[in-house]
Amino acid sequence: MRAHNLALVLHTVANSTSPPSRAAVAGATGLTRATVSALVDDLVAGGLLIEVDPPPRTGAGRPAVGLALTSTGPAGLGLEINVDYLAACVVDLTGAVRHRHVEHADQRPADPAQALAALGRLAAAARLAAEADGLVVAGAALAVPGLVAGGLVRVAPNLAWQDVDAVAALRAVPELADLPVTVDNEANLAALGELRVTGGLSNDRDRSPGPTDAGPSGNSFLYVSGEIGIGAGLVIDGELYRGVRGWSGEIGHVTVYPDGRPCRCGSRGCLEQYAGQEALAVDEPLAAAALGIALSAVVNLLDVPVIVLGGAYAPIFATLREGIEAELRARVLTSGLAPVTLRAAALGPDAAMRGAADTIIRGVREDPAAWLRRSA
Amino acid sequence: MRAHNLALVLHTVANSTSPPSRAAVAGATGLTRATVSALVDDLVAGGLLIEVDPPPRTGAGRPAVGLALTSTGPAGLGLEINVDYLAACVVDLTGAVRHRHVEHADQRPADPAQALAALGRLAAAARLAAEADGLVVAGAALAVPGLVAGGLVRVAPNLAWQDVDAVAALRAVPELADLPVTVDNEANLAALGELRVTGGLSNDRDRSPGPTDAGPSGNSFLYVSGEIGIGAGLVIDGELYRGVRGWSGEIGHVTVYPDGRPCRCGSRGCLEQYAGQEALAVDEPLAAAALGIALSAVVNLLDVPVIVLGGAYAPIFATLREGIEAELRARVLTSGLAPVTLRAAALGPDAAMRGAADTIIRGVREDPAAWLRRSA
Repeated sequence: MRAHNLALVLHTVANSTSPPSRAAVAGATGLTRATVSALVDDLVAGGLLIEVDPPPRTGAGRPAVGLALTSTGPAGLGLEINVDYLAACVVDLTGAVRHRHVEHADQRPADPAQALAALGRLAAAARLAAEADGLVVAGAALAVPGLVAGGLVRVAPNLAWQDVDAVAALRAVPELADLPVTVDNEANLAALGELRVTGGLSNDRDRSPGPTDAGPSGNSFLYVSGEIGIGAGLVIDGELYRGVRGWSGEIGHVTVYPDGRPCRCGSRGCLEQYAGQEALAVDEPLAAAALGIALSAVVNLLDVPVIVLGGAYAPIFATLREGIEAELRARVLTSGLAPVTLRAAALGPDAAMRGAADTIIRGVREDPAAWLRRSA
Repeated sequence: MRAHNLALVLHTVANSTSPPSRAAVAGATGLTRATVSALVDDLVAGGLLIEVDPPPRTGAGRPAVGLALTSTGPAGLGLEINVDYLAACVVDLTGAVRHRHVEHADQRPADPAQALAALGRLAAAARLAAEADGLVVAGAALAVPGLVAGGLVRVAPNLAWQDVDAVAALRAVPELADLPVTVDNEANLAALGELRVTGGLSNDRDRSPGPTDAGPSGNSFLYVSGEIGIGAGLVIDGELYRGVRGWSGEIGHVTVYPDGRPCRCGSRGCLEQYAGQEALAVDEPLAAAALGIALSAVVNLLDVPVIVLGGAYAPIFATLREGIEAELRARVLTSGLAPVTLRAAALGPDAAMRGAADTIIRGVREDPAAWLRRSA
């Protein structure tokens, strides 16, 4: 009960537009003022909430002290390994990015151990920098361009990885040995990151209302992550759909031209060979058409009203848009009944590592009692 | 509470392998014997349960009377209109098909009013025959090869229907005027029918255990309905996924050859043009390859472990299988990690109307209290 109420109070403060007083939190939660005060005291002592000075007010009475999420408490370490870069970021409890480092280098010549050692150094440096700022890194999450099951990277075709224990490799770095580490598909994490920013679930102060804020379909979208490979994350009613074994979203290997170009996966005519970052650089109109064909299949099969283009697609969204929409109009059976909304991702190429860091932050926000026990 | 307990008792009897005694129902439900007896009396009086003689037993004591679903109580009227046939069936509370009539005739020359009038005559005849057998038709459900929203058939490309109020047309038939009537997509209803028969949710006495009885993925499958058009119903963890607006499953309009044959929908290269019943009759290997390409897209996107081929595909499953599986092996990224199970539908061409009738029966089984009030 106390654990539930701690989360409720934290959630209420996180989702307020200005720092609420204890009385306002009591009003919003239905808890008594005495209960709220005791819970707030614990959250302040545990370094999750801070008390902030009230804005100067006219009128009678002493204005009440407001409550806010702390920016010097627990933080999430988001990591990404992709075909042509390594990346790390630290996100604090308010959702603000406090550190961000991207190292561009082709990972394909490296074996998994080499690549993960390099990422481990990046992660250790990010953790040290965050802790020098007074943050406490609560955990790390790693985004990979491949299929993950049981904590293992089963296959990452573009990295030529098979059955790699990335979590063990990262925890072998001395500076990370005590840290909880998880691994997930990069498109899934990017979709979760996008959901946080545009789905009304974020506490970001600077967010602007996106198209997904309106209407009942607001929290249903397909997020497409364009890198060297192409992945997708499907969000239905605010929930990530992972598939029966966790292997959904492999849009990069959807066939667009059955007798087309050979793919690294062994098949022919995969979307990746026409709209992956390397093909895209050579022929943008072909990439847009291929994306349009594959996305039409998704909409015909799943009736998803919104498609979000992320990763390398986000910055060139304007040039891709028309070619994709032409295919959607021609190939989606219901295009005459209800248009499909196409938009660029709000987070761009950082979405996966932001989404990864957010999973750590969300863990703390949803179970502050566990964090208080751990940091006591 | 009484409504909930009536449903619980009915469910317990329906899912018993042999007619249970009142005491056995009490044991299985945790209700007292007195409560079970009162509820059973109501269900017997309302014509939902019957008491059956116990099998002769050796040993001491008088054997208890058993309970079973009645085969002369409420029944569901399942209707289907498709491109080349009209069909009606009546299913009783035990799940047995009591009447079945299929009228083969190309519906494309007919306008919607003509086609629905012919179906209405079929439905009225089925109702009369059922009632002559002592059944009470509780409602009708209509399966259509098209997009349904708000009770209207918005588009049925192969029938050239647009915004047709099929429910009103059926209820205009005098013999059906008092009957609750619903309409749904045929592939969705067929998928539900298949789920009932193979997903462990059916009471059919003659069912044999299918491949979906085993393992955690048992209740997740894509049902593909091959007729003149091709539709699909996606079942995830025992639930039909309808899409945000109810328009999922339009696999017939997934592009397999981008510059291929023109389709009635206005697009090119749709699966339907290669694997619909008319194309299938001309070139079976091409149909199997096209199906394999489209199904590979489904598995790559959704990680569905089982594909069920229904409608016109069911009887020729053996000849299609190898061609489809070859494409799945080549094109599904995870085919090396876990094979996709392909199987023929258990219900064959009757699946949609059986599924339709089952929705009515399920309504009675899930809320017997409403039925008792209605028939009082």
